[in-house]
Amino acid sequence: MAVGLKAPENLLPVKGIRLGITQAGIRYQDRDDLVLIELAEGTQTAAVFTRNAFCAAPVIVSRQHLLSASPSFLVINSGNANAGLGEAGMQAARETCQAVAELASCDPDQVLVFSTGVIGEPFATDKLVAALPAAQANLAEENWLHAAQAIMTTDTVAKGLSEQFELDGQTVTVTGMVKGAGMIRPDIATMLAYIGTDANVDADVLNGILSSAVNKSFNRITVDGDTSTNDACVLMASGRAGNSVISDPVSEGAELLAATIDRVCQQLAEAMLRDAEGATRLMTIVVEQGEDEDECSRVGFTIAHSPLVKTALFAGDPNWGRILAAIGRAGVDDLDIEAIEIMLDDVCIVSNGGRAESYTEEAGQRVMQQDVVTVTVRLGRGNASATVKTCDFSYDYVKINAEYRS
Amino acid sequence: MAVGLKAPENLLPVKGIRLGITQAGIRYQDRDDLVLIELAEGTQTAAVFTRNAFCAAPVIVSRQHLLSASPSFLVINSGNANAGLGEAGMQAARETCQAVAELASCDPDQVLVFSTGVIGEPFATDKLVAALPAAQANLAEENWLHAAQAIMTTDTVAKGLSEQFELDGQTVTVTGMVKGAGMIRPDIATMLAYIGTDANVDADVLNGILSSAVNKSFNRITVDGDTSTNDACVLMASGRAGNSVISDPVSEGAELLAATIDRVCQQLAEAMLRDAEGATRLMTIVVEQGEDEDECSRVGFTIAHSPLVKTALFAGDPNWGRILAAIGRAGVDDLDIEAIEIMLDDVCIVSNGGRAESYTEEAGQRVMQQDVVTVTVRLGRGNASATVKTCDFSYDYVKINAEYRS
Repeated sequence: MAVGLKAPENLLPVKGIRLGITQAGIRYQDRDDLVLIELAEGTQTAAVFTRNAFCAAPVIVSRQHLLSASPSFLVINSGNANAGLGEAGMQAARETCQAVAELASCDPDQVLVFSTGVIGEPFATDKLVAALPAAQANLAEENWLHAAQAIMTTDTVAKGLSEQFELDGQTVTVTGMVKGAGMIRPDIATMLAYIGTDANVDADVLNGILSSAVNKSFNRITVDGDTSTNDACVLMASGRAGNSVISDPVSEGAELLAATIDRVCQQLAEAMLRDAEGATRLMTIVVEQGEDEDECSRVGFTIAHSPLVKTALFAGDPNWGRILAAIGRAGVDDLDIEAIEIMLDDVCIVSNGGRAESYTEEAGQRVMQQDVVTVTVRLGRGNASATVKTCDFSYDYVKINAEYRS
Repeated sequence: MAVGLKAPENLLPVKGIRLGITQAGIRYQDRDDLVLIELAEGTQTAAVFTRNAFCAAPVIVSRQHLLSASPSFLVINSGNANAGLGEAGMQAARETCQAVAELASCDPDQVLVFSTGVIGEPFATDKLVAALPAAQANLAEENWLHAAQAIMTTDTVAKGLSEQFELDGQTVTVTGMVKGAGMIRPDIATMLAYIGTDANVDADVLNGILSSAVNKSFNRITVDGDTSTNDACVLMASGRAGNSVISDPVSEGAELLAATIDRVCQQLAEAMLRDAEGATRLMTIVVEQGEDEDECSRVGFTIAHSPLVKTALFAGDPNWGRILAAIGRAGVDDLDIEAIEIMLDDVCIVSNGGRAESYTEEAGQRVMQQDVVTVTVRLGRGNASATVKTCDFSYDYVKINAEYRS
């Protein structure tokens, strides 16, 4: 079902980061659903989490642990989100960290915990804990692809990629994996993303690189406007590549690493969108000539969230009236509709507030029936711009979300 | 398809308001698509229009005419929205008013014009103008139901109702009709609503009654978050009932009339929701215990617009985690998730930020599989409240909106 997306054939190992995968049977049967990640001593870890006020217990616990210790282990389960369970959920998350700590002889606050799946169902901590030794026994640097498969929920393909660059005569590897197919929108999403690198980099530079990369990637895509209770994106740097430590954010090393992490995050974000629930077509919305980036973003997201635009995209129908109507309700003050220009790829469909004179339905349809469509909106009131990416609303989106729990 | 909704068997005539209906063939063939409404001399008219910055030409022209003259005629077509056509659309709207003025020997600015249908297709003014004499010849006070049928687009049933009350020993009649099934949300919607009364009432009181009634009805429902370029709600009072003029907004007459208009608008709004595109189930969202009405509304609309909540409603699935996640992203400052309580009708599903202890899946499913579900959200932080009504997202919503133009 994914739009022009295949699972990666191979993901490169990252020195100092080992992954162990097993079946815990928490919800899914006959498939892997548990991942343990072991970080070599000295690994720097940066993370961002959902901004939804309703955070799942693992998010609350992981945030606390990150404040008090440097992580040695990550434990991730799919099938149950451990969200909406009140004190019982907090206990499940803490017990999970405690069990990893006992197994690996570390402190519980050196363990981060992540869950994805159904909200509000009792969490089978006992099954997770019982499976931990098998995950530990499986730990290996080569296991990224296997882990990317185990964290999937409604995803149809495993998503990940690797990049390498040279620094100080050493090869630095970056490997990332992500899961997420619905509930995707800014402030990240039902998304778990893990990016590992063996770069030697200090914590401040790493945090800056992650926060900038997330804003340019995961925060620019939306499937349905819903954010999740469990979103997390973690960047782990083991320091095992042999380069001298990157501690200056404007150094060549920082820029090389940042550019690579940006590319990896953007490709992971786009992969998520291509595998979005029911997606058959993608739309990139470029809003230009706004007074500031905020109003450009608002226009972009209003178009991206319009069910009428999304169903027209599904139909391959160049229904630009729906795009214009969405722009009109985006809450931009003193918007001059007559100044607006809209392009579908290179076809001008709207100018001076109406259908462009040169426009033909055939030209519009040719573009709209592609797999990926770019809509450029020119507001004609400034120099700011913003880009938002989304997908269509199809029968399958309804089917997947109406039947998810059945 | 409409949820528990049938077309009215009869709509009462309103003295002083005549309606004429005919086939203009603007887009639809073999059905009526043109309505002319004639208002007796002295009729007071109040109107509210879309707040979308992208207004259709008829909205711009009607607003201008209302400022300069008292309306004598309304002309309404279905099939083409006359929106997004730039100067050509303005010309079409003005020519339509001009044609009515010539036919009826009045000024063009005594004519209001309304269009609903596809955006951005050339408008066949000539067909409309050619059909005007037939509409005029058909003018009669008994034609409300016939008119309610002619203004439909994706509606599946004609929508309208009548009420009467006694004032000053006279019977006052209120009859309303509405069309609209998608693009429905606050700031009204792709909605054309016409309410006629023979009450004798002055313009100030009438304007106050309309604005209050719209806020309590049409502005509280949402189908898909999209607003239209053409929305309008018009209240016409012919003054022919024989009551003494209502000029005091706190008089018995004003209160009787306002209460009746409120009820009529609320029933028309609910009828629109029941006939919403693809709707199979309705949800009333009552948000209580907020700090102010604004945050309650925001929570209500965030739930109402969540595609995940709406697909769960379609499935009859009490997936309260999605409701809680929507509350969490509604942008309420310092929201304490632990204080939140959620009820499905009389079944408590969430308390203390998690699944209520007394909750059983069976009890939740019993409620969610009803035609109409009430979700009560208690925020536990104040005394304000707000109510929002919406419907589910079904396969048919996608089908209708993907195929509308084909």
